[in-house]
Amino acid sequence: MAAVDGGEVDHLAGERATAQFDVDAMKVAWAGSRHAVEVNDRMARLVASDPVFRKDTRTMLSRKELFKDTLKKAAHAWKRIVELRLTEEEANLLRLYVDQPGYVDLHWGMFVPAIKGQGTEEQQKKWVPMAYKFQIIGCYAQTELGHGSNVQGLETTATFDPNTDEFVMHSPTLTSSKWWPGGLGKASTHAVVYARLITQGKDYGIHGFIVQLRSLDDHSPLPGITLGDIGGKFGSGAYNSMDNGVLRFDHVRIPRDQMLMRLSQVTREGKYVHSDVPKQLLYGTMVYVRQTIVADASKALSRAVCIAVRYSAIRKQFGSQAGGPETQVLNYKTQQSRLFPLLASAYAYRFVGEWLKWLYTDVMQKLEAKDYSTLPEAHACTAGLKSVTTSATADAIEECRKLCGGHGYLNSSGLPELFAVYVPACTYEGDNVVLLLQVARFLMKTVSQLASGKQPVGTTAYMGNIQYLMQCKSAVNTAEDWLNPAAIKEVFEARALRMAVNCAQNISKAPSQEEGFSELSPDLLESAVAHVQLIIVTKFIEKLQQDIIGHGVKEQLQNLCNIYALFLLHKHLGDFLSTGCITPKQGALANEQLGRLYAQVRPNAVALVDAFDYTDHYLSSVLGRYDGDVYPALYAEAWKDPLNETVVPDGYQEHLRPLLKQQLKLSRL
Amino acid sequence: MAAVDGGEVDHLAGERATAQFDVDAMKVAWAGSRHAVEVNDRMARLVASDPVFRKDTRTMLSRKELFKDTLKKAAHAWKRIVELRLTEEEANLLRLYVDQPGYVDLHWGMFVPAIKGQGTEEQQKKWVPMAYKFQIIGCYAQTELGHGSNVQGLETTATFDPNTDEFVMHSPTLTSSKWWPGGLGKASTHAVVYARLITQGKDYGIHGFIVQLRSLDDHSPLPGITLGDIGGKFGSGAYNSMDNGVLRFDHVRIPRDQMLMRLSQVTREGKYVHSDVPKQLLYGTMVYVRQTIVADASKALSRAVCIAVRYSAIRKQFGSQAGGPETQVLNYKTQQSRLFPLLASAYAYRFVGEWLKWLYTDVMQKLEAKDYSTLPEAHACTAGLKSVTTSATADAIEECRKLCGGHGYLNSSGLPELFAVYVPACTYEGDNVVLLLQVARFLMKTVSQLASGKQPVGTTAYMGNIQYLMQCKSAVNTAEDWLNPAAIKEVFEARALRMAVNCAQNISKAPSQEEGFSELSPDLLESAVAHVQLIIVTKFIEKLQQDIIGHGVKEQLQNLCNIYALFLLHKHLGDFLSTGCITPKQGALANEQLGRLYAQVRPNAVALVDAFDYTDHYLSSVLGRYDGDVYPALYAEAWKDPLNETVVPDGYQEHLRPLLKQQLKLSRL
Repeated sequence: MAAVDGGEVDHLAGERATAQFDVDAMKVAWAGSRHAVEVNDRMARLVASDPVFRKDTRTMLSRKELFKDTLKKAAHAWKRIVELRLTEEEANLLRLYVDQPGYVDLHWGMFVPAIKGQGTEEQQKKWVPMAYKFQIIGCYAQTELGHGSNVQGLETTATFDPNTDEFVMHSPTLTSSKWWPGGLGKASTHAVVYARLITQGKDYGIHGFIVQLRSLDDHSPLPGITLGDIGGKFGSGAYNSMDNGVLRFDHVRIPRDQMLMRLSQVTREGKYVHSDVPKQLLYGTMVYVRQTIVADASKALSRAVCIAVRYSAIRKQFGSQAGGPETQVLNYKTQQSRLFPLLASAYAYRFVGEWLKWLYTDVMQKLEAKDYSTLPEAHACTAGLKSVTTSATADAIEECRKLCGGHGYLNSSGLPELFAVYVPACTYEGDNVVLLLQVARFLMKTVSQLASGKQPVGTTAYMGNIQYLMQCKSAVNTAEDWLNPAAIKEVFEARALRMAVNCAQNISKAPSQEEGFSELSPDLLESAVAHVQLIIVTKFIEKLQQDIIGHGVKEQLQNLCNIYALFLLHKHLGDFLSTGCITPKQGALANEQLGRLYAQVRPNAVALVDAFDYTDHYLSSVLGRYDGDVYPALYAEAWKDPLNETVVPDGYQEHLRPLLKQQLKLSRL
Repeated sequence: MAAVDGGEVDHLAGERATAQFDVDAMKVAWAGSRHAVEVNDRMARLVASDPVFRKDTRTMLSRKELFKDTLKKAAHAWKRIVELRLTEEEANLLRLYVDQPGYVDLHWGMFVPAIKGQGTEEQQKKWVPMAYKFQIIGCYAQTELGHGSNVQGLETTATFDPNTDEFVMHSPTLTSSKWWPGGLGKASTHAVVYARLITQGKDYGIHGFIVQLRSLDDHSPLPGITLGDIGGKFGSGAYNSMDNGVLRFDHVRIPRDQMLMRLSQVTREGKYVHSDVPKQLLYGTMVYVRQTIVADASKALSRAVCIAVRYSAIRKQFGSQAGGPETQVLNYKTQQSRLFPLLASAYAYRFVGEWLKWLYTDVMQKLEAKDYSTLPEAHACTAGLKSVTTSATADAIEECRKLCGGHGYLNSSGLPELFAVYVPACTYEGDNVVLLLQVARFLMKTVSQLASGKQPVGTTAYMGNIQYLMQCKSAVNTAEDWLNPAAIKEVFEARALRMAVNCAQNISKAPSQEEGFSELSPDLLESAVAHVQLIIVTKFIEKLQQDIIGHGVKEQLQNLCNIYALFLLHKHLGDFLSTGCITPKQGALANEQLGRLYAQVRPNAVALVDAFDYTDHYLSSVLGRYDGDVYPALYAEAWKDPLNETVVPDGYQEHLRPLLKQQLKLSRL
């Protein structure tokens, strides 16, 4: 069903026949609803069938060709969205399946939300309609050459001039150059620029300003503004379709009303005043953005896993017995033990991402009711999930590439580009290590408040059970006992809590809280990871407590949930043993059970990746083709390389022939 | 000293002033001798000062431009080698510092050694001088589209025709197409081709044949031969300079004497006969090649670490106290705990690589004396070291990239290309997982022979101490106790042996040895890794038992050795705890000591990477510049991007302006 151009061949038919569950029902479980399956499928096919959206030669384009291709696709996508009167949901999906980073991502994902979130009603009325019609193109200019994660360290200034009722935007140093914003380099006409607000001689810290960058007549930069692209990035194709940019201001003036004034204003006289809008409202946006990042992680991971599983079923290496036919790579336990945990992770991230959508609506409802009590917990939870899922996904894509052997190194496998385009997720929207330290700080605070009887909420609620969790011993006696969700949950809770309490105790021995936190920070990272992994395991278990329809679907998900948890247990065995949550014997039983679960997944593996319902266009991988007809396709792809335009390569006459003919012109020395 | 174009600025002078050791003496310790420092330095500067060898815009070249540039550099390098009458050592180093994969790597590294190792004296006399003069260019055509690691599965046939005294080379299937060989696609005139030898109706398995591929007059493929490049690979620049190729034969005839006949021959009549040369001689080549791969790992890892350490000393994020100046990233414990183990690993791999050089000469001496007793051990040891060092290095380069924050994602950081060009090392010359399983197989055999009293040799000698190692308990009582090399060695030996014995016991419970091995293979991988890590730790410790000259040099290396070992202990804590080698308390003490060691490395970090003595040309990284003048250089690099050739981008008129002007031509639907 998924492959748009499915032919007669299906080398994976045998694999599909062994599935022990209803694949269509699993598609619903994965996508979230029958409607989601339908609209995803429709948009994916719309993109896949349109020649403008071809991407099979993308990695061969020069930077300029690639950028032009991105402009073309963006305009064409917009044209289709308007022509077909697509809903916002459909339009978002269409852009997703176009699958090429470009200025529109920042326009819709950052510029518009920034104005909606931080602009006054009047400002929204003025700017949002223009943005919605693409009369202007906007980006989000925050990071600077010398300043990434630390927003408070930004150097760009916006100085109010009461004489003209204007702000003067200025880049006082080289390191204050805006650097990295997507869409800034070439495409955007406007930006939300973050700068230090200075008025009446006082620095009021970082605020947002709407700044026009380019002429709407001829797209040339406005006076005093220097704009450019910051240069090539990791990989071929990949994020090079995006014009991440540099921006410098030389005393550029903008009207006072282009400061985003929802939370604070500068008056005509230059007085700085706060509005009565609580600044916590901004947290809602952050939760929203991070929820989409977790959803993207499951998307990227599942793509890589889909490619690796299908190709592992096609690829054969070595005989099962001497002289016999070679064995499918997917049958090897080493392949299964590396690949199936990633398959399980894709499902785990999908379901925790779904739960984050609920969390977002919950947070927004509470914000509207001016209940800010659960905000710190929601902040820590989303920060941690962003960090853990993106780091693991980046590693997993590369692991999937290696699991495809040498051919995974070819661009035609799709995996190099998938990796290169994905890895920035570990850095943007909060560096993953910085975010984990924020989680750890929250955990330390939660632990310290336990003594005073304050009940922890949400994903930290388990910490309230400290009496039990600090001394419990796992009752697991057989490998099968590890299939019990309660047994899994208990050891994950005990591990996370004990690691947090250990850290808290060690910090308390330091001369100061800050020194202790700094000294212990490597341990704190591990403690935060343990907490976040518990959240993911718990949400997977909770998902399975809901109704899930379809023959065999729940059983498959149960297996994947157990694999995810027991794989983590094995990977972090040191945590579980050193905190005394389990015994070495119980660890060995978990590992034994893991092997059995792999065997149960094996006949379902291809069907489990089919359930992601990706078109061949979206996968863009010769190795991951739905029909498994890999080798003819690999062979055909090779000839598309520009190097194959001639049989004798360019450079033969100048640099090869003289060498071979012993006619290099040598200097006398 | 290392930077060729060192200016006045040295932003890292302060860092260099805090070093507590003699950097020049450390350079000698790193390079292996005063002579090695001198010749490395001379060749590195020769390359760096020659404009033909520029590589700062390499990632911006199209595939064709890049390939032509590679041909140019190869010819120029050869010209310089001849003109300057460089020694073989100097020539190899010059090629190393040119730092661009190309056909010469395979010509010298595989084609010539294959003929020398597998050709008769007569064949060597005929072919080697031509190769030495570059009258022919050769490559090594083994892997096929459908066959990677499993050489015995190759399908290409070489059928002897006694009527004409020729072999007929043929590609009977699509999957039998030769696929991947470097230099094959466009540059090589000849290849050593591996094919199934068929004579008198019988298949004698895989043998090597010298086959001319292209005309020496005009470089066009000879009749019946199809040649091409297999297409783009991971990254910009990187391995795309190499023409990895595809080759198909349609009944191509070659003279009988082009079969490599040192080990076996086909007579004029077509009879297959073995010579009296023992086939073990081929193992020598394998040990040699793997030794160079381990040396390359330390080279690649040290480059990445050098970049990350220097930039971490330049980059500042967040204040140490509110309002104060921002802190050098290198001061953060989280940065240290991720980066310093990699610095330690670079030194560890360097020294184990040095030891492998000795092992190679030892193996060769024994082979000449027809003593094959230590071969299996040497084979397992080199296979394991190849696997562990290349996997860890690939991961480490990516970790270094992440440690540089967002800027590490820019090509100008040098890290994306370093990663992309390095990762194939995990797959070529034996897939890392396949190699580890070979190690495991050897370990299982060694364990099973212990009972019969056979004494294990070389790197497995410790297994003879089984009585003690199976029951010993670490005596470590304080964090400082972990500084004792004997304490470290004991727990690493105990862990490796106990894991191997556990596996052997579990295998023995299976219905058959093979089934058990297959079921247990994920555990066997871990057991093999434990054994190999022990080797690396042991060789580092043994290095420190030798004389090492220079103020403070030995002390620094001692710290790094301890960091390497204790970092592994922490990372694999589950292994050590589950086998009962240490207690949780001892694990915590190791971690505590690790933190202290990081503090001791901190003031020496920049000097420790200076000791690698890399030129800015070789590093090719704006972030890793010797002078630390990072930000002006990043800014300047950006403007070189082709996208910055015009202020208004190509595509504005067609795809941006109509959008902004609301003039997209919509279809009626």
